[in-house]
Amino acid sequence: MKTLQVSLGDRSYPIYIGSGLLGKPDLFKPHIAGQSIYVVSNTTVAPLYSKKLIQTISRDAKSVHEIILPDGESYKDWATLQKIFDVMLSKGADRKSVIIALGGGVIGDMAGFAAASFMRGIRFIQVPTTLLAQVDSSVGGKTGINHPLGKNMIGAFHQPVAVIADLDTLKTLPPRELSAGLAEVIKHGAIADATFFDWIESHTKELLGCDPNAMSHAVERSCEIKSAVVAADEKESGIRAILNYGHTFGHAIESGLGYGEWLHGEAVGCGMVMAADLSARLGHIPSSDVTRIQELVTALGLPNCAPKLGNQRFFELMQIDKKSEGGEIRYITLEKIGRAKIEMADHAIVSQTLSAYQAS
Amino acid sequence: MKTLQVSLGDRSYPIYIGSGLLGKPDLFKPHIAGQSIYVVSNTTVAPLYSKKLIQTISRDAKSVHEIILPDGESYKDWATLQKIFDVMLSKGADRKSVIIALGGGVIGDMAGFAAASFMRGIRFIQVPTTLLAQVDSSVGGKTGINHPLGKNMIGAFHQPVAVIADLDTLKTLPPRELSAGLAEVIKHGAIADATFFDWIESHTKELLGCDPNAMSHAVERSCEIKSAVVAADEKESGIRAILNYGHTFGHAIESGLGYGEWLHGEAVGCGMVMAADLSARLGHIPSSDVTRIQELVTALGLPNCAPKLGNQRFFELMQIDKKSEGGEIRYITLEKIGRAKIEMADHAIVSQTLSAYQAS
Repeated sequence: MKTLQVSLGDRSYPIYIGSGLLGKPDLFKPHIAGQSIYVVSNTTVAPLYSKKLIQTISRDAKSVHEIILPDGESYKDWATLQKIFDVMLSKGADRKSVIIALGGGVIGDMAGFAAASFMRGIRFIQVPTTLLAQVDSSVGGKTGINHPLGKNMIGAFHQPVAVIADLDTLKTLPPRELSAGLAEVIKHGAIADATFFDWIESHTKELLGCDPNAMSHAVERSCEIKSAVVAADEKESGIRAILNYGHTFGHAIESGLGYGEWLHGEAVGCGMVMAADLSARLGHIPSSDVTRIQELVTALGLPNCAPKLGNQRFFELMQIDKKSEGGEIRYITLEKIGRAKIEMADHAIVSQTLSAYQAS
Repeated sequence: MKTLQVSLGDRSYPIYIGSGLLGKPDLFKPHIAGQSIYVVSNTTVAPLYSKKLIQTISRDAKSVHEIILPDGESYKDWATLQKIFDVMLSKGADRKSVIIALGGGVIGDMAGFAAASFMRGIRFIQVPTTLLAQVDSSVGGKTGINHPLGKNMIGAFHQPVAVIADLDTLKTLPPRELSAGLAEVIKHGAIADATFFDWIESHTKELLGCDPNAMSHAVERSCEIKSAVVAADEKESGIRAILNYGHTFGHAIESGLGYGEWLHGEAVGCGMVMAADLSARLGHIPSSDVTRIQELVTALGLPNCAPKLGNQRFFELMQIDKKSEGGEIRYITLEKIGRAKIEMADHAIVSQTLSAYQAS
């Protein structure tokens, strides 16, 4: 087992990465002892792992309650969130109660926002069971739900008290979800670590085959990179925005198609290719780097071509992005592979990228 | 104009108290200059003050948008909150946008929670127009909405960037709302300042008559007391709970009757008498102090007798209180007039209080 630390003063917390962690009571005990625990999961993940988790925590918790939500990004809304509150209040949850998010990014975001706002804030533990959640969404304290007009528009910064990433859960992941998670792995290399990017390029087969050593390295290095960025800028007033590389285009695809059509990681995969293309058009990187990113995205089973939403619709959707200010869209571009920056860009140039990547 | 400061490190902010403040652009300018502003108000307050406020801020803001909600505690719910998000997203609000809460406690709580969760947190200004909001709810950063199973159960600690309390707005307050606000004024004396309590006793006529000097002193001293408690314990891990004096019984009355039947301040008025009675039964204060509190509550036009919910229902409702832990209810009691504490109490003794104060 590897332990990393997210350094945020009195909101610091550990990330545990390894095999068999769902069966280790000691990792959970300091946070749940004597309290009533609410395990939030979904109809796909709960049958696989919730029994094991509940067994692990039952000895130390005062009581354990399960809240099983429908599966999918299209349920990341207020109505589903409300179900968490309904169960907690009817079971007598209090300010000392703890939520455990058992699942992927959607469960982590919703359970985290429930923890942020239940009685104005209670503790929660992230137990990510998808690659995307282990390498990205479970770390950093971003929680929230979607609004019909934009993704993750309603939410809170609320850090978990621990992230417990059991690599064994990745074995049951459908190939499409594995690829979606690998998008965020590529992202971490692209924005912060050229050596890691090289390593991903040379381990595509192992990653797609879910090789334990490869997965372990991918998760650890991703969490290290993300933790460092979050520690430097918890509330995204600056540098943290580079973690949104590929997300400006990606969010537009997701909300333009309707949540759940494409997986988040798929939209980010395509979005990273588009953002690389924009970086090249702005003169930052050679077209050979765009090719490298496009080939890696493709090799890992991700789309490299956007749905035909039309340029105008793309711009409208991107304007709703949380990075926008006064209607001005901010893009995350690459200065080179391994270094990203935040900038505005001329509509005419972005239009070229949009035209080049929409399926005809 | 008097200026107080709520000292919370980088979340510190000023409270301005005085006449004619709605007409002073300089108080707003530092927080709104160049940004898009969303004035959240209700159908009662907006016709009285929103034109004036918008005139005051229009010169410095980039744009001003009005969001007018229905009036009343029964609308302090998710559906109404959603209307704020709908307007903001459709008008292109961004992370630099600022919400101004123009109204009483319900508007301040909802607009504040909207600010806490829109794009994971934007700035907001409290412009309280009721006495209750000026002396209590606009200060301290508690925001939230009600759940059918409990009051203020969903929310956030999110401090405003300024509180601007224009005493002129109190002149249009209906007598019932004025009395409801005076309940929280009494509360501040009862828990923290015996001299202030004496002063209230000797100025009931001036307070009910909305005498400018009396109102000014009542608001200032209340804000001073509340600010000091909030500065000592922002997130209510301890001492801040004394501000809930009268609220354990009061919240039970409010949710037992259905939100909006009694005004919040009315329920608190009655709740303070009950909590004083409990303090006497626990041997902390003489019955003459209960009489003083009961007489002051009555003199200021507040109920001193609870609706007949039944003792068992009262206990059920009080158990859902946010101060409860593991089903154990915490009561705020008086050690003497001017000093409060937090404690558990025997059901049998609390039952005596409940039986004594329910209307037959």
